[in-house]
Amino acid sequence: MKPWIRKSRKTVLQDRWLSLHADECELPNGRIVSPYYVIEERDWVHVAAVNAEGQILLTRQYRYAAGVMTSELPCGIIEPGESPLDAARRELKEETGHVARDWTQVGVLFNNPARYTNRLYCFLARNLTHQSPQALDDTEQIIWEFASPDEVMRKIASGDFCQALHVATWSLALQWMAAGNG
Amino acid sequence: MKPWIRKSRKTVLQDRWLSLHADECELPNGRIVSPYYVIEERDWVHVAAVNAEGQILLTRQYRYAAGVMTSELPCGIIEPGESPLDAARRELKEETGHVARDWTQVGVLFNNPARYTNRLYCFLARNLTHQSPQALDDTEQIIWEFASPDEVMRKIASGDFCQALHVATWSLALQWMAAGNG
Repeated sequence: MKPWIRKSRKTVLQDRWLSLHADECELPNGRIVSPYYVIEERDWVHVAAVNAEGQILLTRQYRYAAGVMTSELPCGIIEPGESPLDAARRELKEETGHVARDWTQVGVLFNNPARYTNRLYCFLARNLTHQSPQALDDTEQIIWEFASPDEVMRKIASGDFCQALHVATWSLALQWMAAGNG
Repeated sequence: MKPWIRKSRKTVLQDRWLSLHADECELPNGRIVSPYYVIEERDWVHVAAVNAEGQILLTRQYRYAAGVMTSELPCGIIEPGESPLDAARRELKEETGHVARDWTQVGVLFNNPARYTNRLYCFLARNLTHQSPQALDDTEQIIWEFASPDEVMRKIASGDFCQALHVATWSLALQWMAAGNG
């Protein structure tokens, strides 16, 4: 199985949030595919933060594209020059005011490698302390709460915890803890 | 917590694969956010197909945007007028030649509700029969194989099974089976 070859690229949009490219690709069998859309976004972090009682820290916010209120994990973009772990610490603190003493990277996934270039760094954070108020900018409105693993499963089933990428991170954190690491 | 209001929309791109819109939004606090990018894609299906030995059916293919060979689940776009279950049956058969007697919808998630409008229908397929050759179009090259749940976990850890959305579907299927349904 061989990679595709990029024959040309037309950039449809390029700005600080994302870039969209329409590529002309040659497949290993000689077939040309055009346009094939590629979207570049910056890498992301997700934080599964678990307290001493085994409860998970959820954030609740409005998600505009789908027009839904969702329960999610603390998450965000890795800023230029920032390490994934530093971004994870920052997002957890900004969105919930919590800091964690123990951090484990439980996986590195792709957002969607068919369409997107960016990676998703998945962290488990434990030994939590609620240290400070949230530090949100004026485009963010986030409520945080703790929920048991059973409550998270019910929120997935009911459609309240409905972000597929966050379900992936939560499952990796659960499996890491179930494997005797926690 | 209130929804945002769309004040205006500029469509940057619209074609059969995706649409990209740059919206001007008014937040509940009166703040204007512009541009806020919204991407429309069609809804997708994922199939966690499990055989009598508990092995999972994986597909292996080249994913152009990220430039990686990945192991994934059978998946695809729901065609206009098609039900999610019919799309799941079709994709499983086209990509692997397998049919399944037992189908369970184990979840409906959003791809990424902050940016995308589309949903992801997650199915568990059991009682499998290998019925026919693959029916791929000439832009697809897909190899299928069965792997045990432990092998899937190792493939996630090694970065071979690296599609976050597919990790989510596999975790929902595993949890559904572990809950005594399987």
